[in-house]
Amino acid sequence: NGCKVSNVDEFHAAVQQAQPGDVIVLAAGVWQDAELKFDANGTAEQPIKLTVEKKGAVTLEGQSRITISGEHLIVEGLVFKNGYSPTSEVISFKKKKGVYANNCRVTECVVDNYNGPERFESNTWVAIYGKNNRVDHCYLVDKRNIGVTMTVRMVDELCRENNHRIDHNYFGYRQNLGANGGETLRLGTSHYSLSTCGTTVENNYFEYCDGEHEIISNKSCGNQFLNNTFMECRGTLTYRHGNDNVAEGNVFFGNGKEHTGGIRIINKRNKAINNYFADLTGYRFRGALVIMNGVPNSAINRYHQVDGGVFTNNTFVNCDHIQLCAGSDDERSAIPINSLIENNVFLHQGRDDIFTIYDDISGIEFKNNFVAENINAEQLNVTKTEITATKNENGIYEITGAVNGAGSSIKAAAANAENTGVNWYSKQLRNKDFGTGKSIEVKPGLNTLLEAYNQSASGDVLVLSEAGDYAMEKKFEISHPISIVAAKGIDKPRLLSSKQEMFTIQNGGSLQLKGVEINGEMSPDLTGNCIVSTSHYSMNCNYKLMVEDCDVKDLDVNKFFDFLRSYKSTHADTVLIKNCHFDNLTGHVLRLDEETDDRGIFNAEYVILENSVFKHIEGTVLDLYRGGTDESTFGPTLKVNECQLINVGNGKRNKENGSMMVHGVQVCYISNTRFVNSKPLNLHLTNGEPITKITNCDFEMSTIVFNNKEFEVDNVTIDGKKKSLKQL
Amino acid sequence: NGCKVSNVDEFHAAVQQAQPGDVIVLAAGVWQDAELKFDANGTAEQPIKLTVEKKGAVTLEGQSRITISGEHLIVEGLVFKNGYSPTSEVISFKKKKGVYANNCRVTECVVDNYNGPERFESNTWVAIYGKNNRVDHCYLVDKRNIGVTMTVRMVDELCRENNHRIDHNYFGYRQNLGANGGETLRLGTSHYSLSTCGTTVENNYFEYCDGEHEIISNKSCGNQFLNNTFMECRGTLTYRHGNDNVAEGNVFFGNGKEHTGGIRIINKRNKAINNYFADLTGYRFRGALVIMNGVPNSAINRYHQVDGGVFTNNTFVNCDHIQLCAGSDDERSAIPINSLIENNVFLHQGRDDIFTIYDDISGIEFKNNFVAENINAEQLNVTKTEITATKNENGIYEITGAVNGAGSSIKAAAANAENTGVNWYSKQLRNKDFGTGKSIEVKPGLNTLLEAYNQSASGDVLVLSEAGDYAMEKKFEISHPISIVAAKGIDKPRLLSSKQEMFTIQNGGSLQLKGVEINGEMSPDLTGNCIVSTSHYSMNCNYKLMVEDCDVKDLDVNKFFDFLRSYKSTHADTVLIKNCHFDNLTGHVLRLDEETDDRGIFNAEYVILENSVFKHIEGTVLDLYRGGTDESTFGPTLKVNECQLINVGNGKRNKENGSMMVHGVQVCYISNTRFVNSKPLNLHLTNGEPITKITNCDFEMSTIVFNNKEFEVDNVTIDGKKKSLKQL
Ligand SMILES: [Ca+2]
Ligand SMILES: [Ca+2]
Repeated sequence: NGCKVSNVDEFHAAVQQAQPGDVIVLAAGVWQDAELKFDANGTAEQPIKLTVEKKGAVTLEGQSRITISGEHLIVEGLVFKNGYSPTSEVISFKKKKGVYANNCRVTECVVDNYNGPERFESNTWVAIYGKNNRVDHCYLVDKRNIGVTMTVRMVDELCRENNHRIDHNYFGYRQNLGANGGETLRLGTSHYSLSTCGTTVENNYFEYCDGEHEIISNKSCGNQFLNNTFMECRGTLTYRHGNDNVAEGNVFFGNGKEHTGGIRIINKRNKAINNYFADLTGYRFRGALVIMNGVPNSAINRYHQVDGGVFTNNTFVNCDHIQLCAGSDDERSAIPINSLIENNVFLHQGRDDIFTIYDDISGIEFKNNFVAENINAEQLNVTKTEITATKNENGIYEITGAVNGAGSSIKAAAANAENTGVNWYSKQLRNKDFGTGKSIEVKPGLNTLLEAYNQSASGDVLVLSEAGDYAMEKKFEISHPISIVAAKGIDKPRLLSSKQEMFTIQNGGSLQLKGVEINGEMSPDLTGNCIVSTSHYSMNCNYKLMVEDCDVKDLDVNKFFDFLRSYKSTHADTVLIKNCHFDNLTGHVLRLDEETDDRGIFNAEYVILENSVFKHIEGTVLDLYRGGTDESTFGPTLKVNECQLINVGNGKRNKENGSMMVHGVQVCYISNTRFVNSKPLNLHLTNGEPITKITNCDFEMSTIVFNNKEFEVDNVTIDGKKKSLKQL
Repeated sequence: NGCKVSNVDEFHAAVQQAQPGDVIVLAAGVWQDAELKFDANGTAEQPIKLTVEKKGAVTLEGQSRITISGEHLIVEGLVFKNGYSPTSEVISFKKKKGVYANNCRVTECVVDNYNGPERFESNTWVAIYGKNNRVDHCYLVDKRNIGVTMTVRMVDELCRENNHRIDHNYFGYRQNLGANGGETLRLGTSHYSLSTCGTTVENNYFEYCDGEHEIISNKSCGNQFLNNTFMECRGTLTYRHGNDNVAEGNVFFGNGKEHTGGIRIINKRNKAINNYFADLTGYRFRGALVIMNGVPNSAINRYHQVDGGVFTNNTFVNCDHIQLCAGSDDERSAIPINSLIENNVFLHQGRDDIFTIYDDISGIEFKNNFVAENINAEQLNVTKTEITATKNENGIYEITGAVNGAGSSIKAAAANAENTGVNWYSKQLRNKDFGTGKSIEVKPGLNTLLEAYNQSASGDVLVLSEAGDYAMEKKFEISHPISIVAAKGIDKPRLLSSKQEMFTIQNGGSLQLKGVEINGEMSPDLTGNCIVSTSHYSMNCNYKLMVEDCDVKDLDVNKFFDFLRSYKSTHADTVLIKNCHFDNLTGHVLRLDEETDDRGIFNAEYVILENSVFKHIEGTVLDLYRGGTDESTFGPTLKVNECQLINVGNGKRNKENGSMMVHGVQVCYISNTRFVNSKPLNLHLTNGEPITKITNCDFEMSTIVFNNKEFEVDNVTIDGKKKSLKQL
C-alpha cells in the first residue's frame, strides 16, 4: 500500500513500518537538507519502493542525501540539485561499515550540479556497495569537484562478486578537473583490484565526460562493459587494474575533439571485442587503442603486464593514435605477452602515421587485420587493402573493402541520449560563452563600467563607446562570462581602479578584454596589487580569461603588481593573451603557480600567448606549475607564438630563475619568439612524456635552462649562435 | 532648520538643498548599503550638520560609507558595523581626486569591526584629506584587515600644511595583523614625507592597538602628538619619516605585556618632551626609546639620519629596552648627530641592563640624566642615584630621588577610556577564550561530537565522557572557540572522520584538543587529508589551536596526510602542541608556510612545541615561513622544548631539506630537544636581527643547516660530538 510523506520525520516513520510491497511517496516540493535513511527489507516478489508524487516535482536540495540499506528496495525519481551532500556520498548503498544494500535498485534519479564549493574536497554521487544492485536510467550531469561520479565499492567481502548492473544511465557533461580524481565511473580500487567485482556496465550514454583521462577506471576483475556509447569524451575506458574484463559492442565517437580516446589496456586477460572507434584524436594514454607496458613484479598500484589480452573485431576510423607498448620506460619494461590482435580494421582519411610502437611487440600475435593503403604499418603483420568508409544514417562509418570478415558489426550505437537517463528532466547545457548575450553601451566615468556589469547577464558585451577613463573605486566581481570591448575605431579607452584588484573572477565568471588600455596609475600605493584575480576561494567552475588587442601599462606604483594572479583550487580552461603590449610591471604577468602541493593539480589547462610584447617586467611573463608524478591529466598546454620578451624577470624580487617558468607542462610549443635581456626560459620537464618544442626562437642576453634534455629545439639562436639540443 | 531623512535618496535631496545652518537628521534604524555623499557648503558661523535621530540608534551596515566634501560640515553620531565599505575608505574627506573637505568635523562616530572578509585587502576607516578638519570623540575598534585605521592623506598641495586636529578619540582593540600595514594612525606617506603636514594629535586613548609595531606611523613634517595615552599597545609611536615633529605629554602604559614600546626616532629635529613610559617590555624597534641609525644619503623611503633630535624630561620606569643607534648595519651606518638627551630619568626595579648601544653615540649629548643605581650605564654620561618609584592613585609611578628636576611632570594620563570616544556605545570585548563557557557531555558514536558542537556556544567545552570511538562522517566546521576534552580518568577517546579534513577552523573559530587520540583509520583513501585545516578562504580573525595530552596516530591511508594545514590569509595567534605523541604521518605535522609571496605576511605568531614526541613523520614537524625583508612584525616566535623528533622528514615526497623548517622567524628558542635519524633542523635567518638560540640539543643522524651563522648554540651535540657555532 502507498503512503505519502511530507518531511523527513514522516519518511523515517514510514520506513520503520514499511512492509514488503509498500510504496512510500515523497510529496511534491523542495526537500531541503533532507538526509533520507532508507533502511528496510522487502522481498524479491514484493520490494519496498520509494518514489515521488510527480517525477521532476520533487527535488532534494541543500545538504540532502540518501543512504539505502537492506534488501529488495527500489528508489525512483529523486532529483538532487542546488546543494551538496553533507557526507562524501549523495546516493549511498550503505548504512554504515558492513551494513549495505543488496538486491536494490536506484532508477530514474537525477543528480545535477550537486557540488560543494571546494573543488578538491572529494565527493561521490552514487556509491554502490553490497551485491546484486542495479542503477539504471539515472541522469548525472555537471559534476565539478574531485571524486568519481559513480563508483562500485569493494571494501569488504560483502561487496565483491557483486553482480551489479549499471545500465541505461546518462552520464552528462563533466568539466575538465585539472587533476587526477575526475573519473566518471570507477569499479573497485587498487587495493582490492585482484578480487572479482563482477559488475555489468551496459547501454550507458557518456557525453562530454572530460574530467580526466580515465572516463571509466576499471580497478577490479570480471567486469563487462557492453554496448555503451562515448560521445566526445576526453579520455578512455581504462583497464587500470584487474583481470578478465570484457568490453564489447561499445561505440566511441570523438568527432575530432581533442584528447578523445578509446580503450587502454593493462593487466591480464582483458578483452576488447567488436567495438567501434571513430574520429578520436587522443594520443599517448588517450589513444583509440592503447596497450601498455607493465612493471615487472608490479606493486598492486602500479602497472601489471598485459598478458593474454584479446582485441578482436574492432573498427578504427580516423583515429589518430594506436599505441602499442605505451608507457615503455625504465620502470615499465614488461612488454605485452600472449596477446592477440585479430580481425581488426584500421583506416584514416587524413593521416598515415597512426601506429606508434614503443617497445617489442613480439608478444602480440597479429591475425587477419586490415589497414587502409595509406597507413604506415611496416612493422606490423597487417594487410594493406583499399578500404573506404561512409557514414550511415546512424552516424556510423560503414566499411567497404576486402577485409575478410574483420572489423566490428556495429551499425548503430545501442545507447543514445534518448534511450538513457530520464525523459522528464531538462538536459540543457547552461554555460554561455563570450559574446552570446546582448550589448550594453558604457560611457567613461567613475564606476560606470561596474554599474553596467551589474545590469548584465551571462555572455553580455559591455561596449565602451568612447575613449576616455573608465575608473573604478569598488571591487569589480565577475560572476558570469562578460566581455569588455572597445567600440570600433576609437582610441583605446583606459581602465583604472583604486582597488588592489581591478577585476576578481568569482566562481562562474569569465572575462574577455578587447581593445582597451589597462593602466596602474590610479591603483593604491600598496604591495601586491593585480589587475585580474581569481576568487581567493575555491572555484568549482573553470574560468576563461581572454585578453586581446590591449595595452597594459605602468603597473608599478608599488612592489608585486601582477597582471593575473590565481589562487589555489582555481582552474582556467583558457588564458589567452593576443596582440597585446605589456609594459612596466613590478610583478608577474601570469601567475599560475599556486598548486605547489605536487598532487598533480594545476591552475590552467591552456595558456596561449600570441603576437604580444612584454617589456620591463620585473617578475615573469608566465609561471605555470604542474607538480606531482601522476599521469592522469591532459594539460597544462602552453602555446607561445610571435612574442617578444624584453627585459623580463630581472627584478630583484623575482625569486624564479626565469622570465618564463614552464614546470610539468604536458604540451609546450614555443615558436617565433624573442627573449631579449631577460632571465632564461626555464623548463622543468616531468610527468610521463611531455611534448616540448622550441622552434625559431632567438635568445639575446638570455638563454634556456632545463632539468633534462627531453625536448626538441629547431632553429634556436642564443646570443647570435644557432644551437642544437646537444649544444645547449 | 532641521530635516529628518529616512533613506539615501532623501538624504541626497536634503544635501542638495542644504543651506548654512541646516541640520540633516538620519532617522533611527539600520541603514543598509548606504553610500552617503555629504557634499555641501556651510559657513564658519553656520555649518551644515549631519546628525542622527538618536545616538546609537542609527547604524550604517552592509556596504555603507560616507564621503564628505565642501566647507564647514559636521558629521555626528554615525555608527558603522556589520559590513564594510565597498570602496577602500569608510569615512572619507574626499569626493574625488582634488575635491576634498575643509573646515569640517567628524565627531562621535563609531566604526566597529567594519571589516571585509579579505584579511589582506587594504582598507582605511577614516581618511582625512583637505585642510583644517577635525576628527574627535570617535570610537574605532576591532579593525582586522590590512590598512591603517585612520590616516591623514597628503596626496596633493590641497592636503598639506593642513592644520587638522585629531583629538579625544578612543582607538580600541586592534589584533595583531602578522604583516606590515596594521598601523592605527598614519600621517602622510613616504612620498610626501618631507612636506609639512601640520596635524595635531592630542588627548587620544589608544588601547590594545596591536596591529604591528607602528602604533602611529608619522611620515610627514610638523606634527604634534600631545597628551595621548597608550594602554598596552604593542609597538611604538614612530617618527618613520619627516622632520620637526613633537611628542609631548604622552603616557605609555605597558603593564608588562610583550612587545609594548614607546617612541622610535628617525629623521631631523624630532622631539620627545615630558613623556612618561612605564612597564614596557619591547626590544629592538619596539623599545621604550629607540634612536635609530640612518642610511647615508637615504632614499626617501629608507632611513634618514637622526639629526637635531631632542629628548628631554622623560621618565622611564621599568622599561626593559632603551635602544641607541638601533638598526645599525652595513646599510644603516649614519649615526645620530646634533642630538640631545637631557633631564631624563631611567629606573628599573627588575632589570639592570636596559640600555643597548649599537654604534657610536658621540653625536648625542647627554645632560642632567639620572639612572637608578642598579642600572648598567657605564658607557653613558648619566648620573647614578638612588631613585624609587611609587604608583599614585592615577596609576602613574611617582619618582623620589635626587634627580635635579629631571623626569616628566605627568601625574595622571590626560586621556583615558572615559574622556575619549563616545559614552553611548558598548565597549565590551567580544572574544571568549577556551573554557570560559559551559560544559556539554558527549557520548561515543557517529556524529555525536558534531551534534554537540552544533549546540555549543563560544568558549564551551565538549567533554567526552567515555572512552570509545567518536566518529564523524560530515564536515566539522568550527566557527567559535571550542574545547574538546576527555573526561578525567578515562582511556583516551578516539576521534575519527571519513572526511578529508577532520576539523576546519573557520573565521572566528579556535580549537583546543585535550586528552584524546586522533586516528586516521577511518579517513578516506585520498591524497591530501588533514586533521585540522584553517578556512581555505581568508580569515580576518586570528585563531588558536591548542593540542595537549593527545596521541595522533596513523595518518597514513594515502599521501600527504598532514596534521595542521593552513591557508593563505590566515593567521594563528598561537599553535601549541604539548605532551603529545605523533606517530606515523605521511605528511607534515604543522604546515604554516602558505605565505610565500615574500610580502612579510606569515601564518602564525607563536608556535610552541613542548614535551612531545614526533615519530615516523614523512614530512616536517614544522614548516614555518615568514618571507620578505620588512621589519614591521613581531613574530613569528617559535619555542621548542623537551621534544623528540625520530625519523622525521625522510619521506620521498618531502620537498624540504629539513625535519623542521624555520624561515624568517623573528624569535626562535629550541632547547632540550633531540633530532634522531631525521632531516636537518633548517634555519633561514632573515629580517632585521632575529633572535635564534639552540640550547641543549642533541642531533643523531641529523644536523643543523643554515644560511648564515647569526644564531647562538649552547651545548649542541651532533653525532656524539659537542659543536660550537664555529664548528658547525
Ligand atoms: Ca584517474
Ligand atoms: Ca608599518
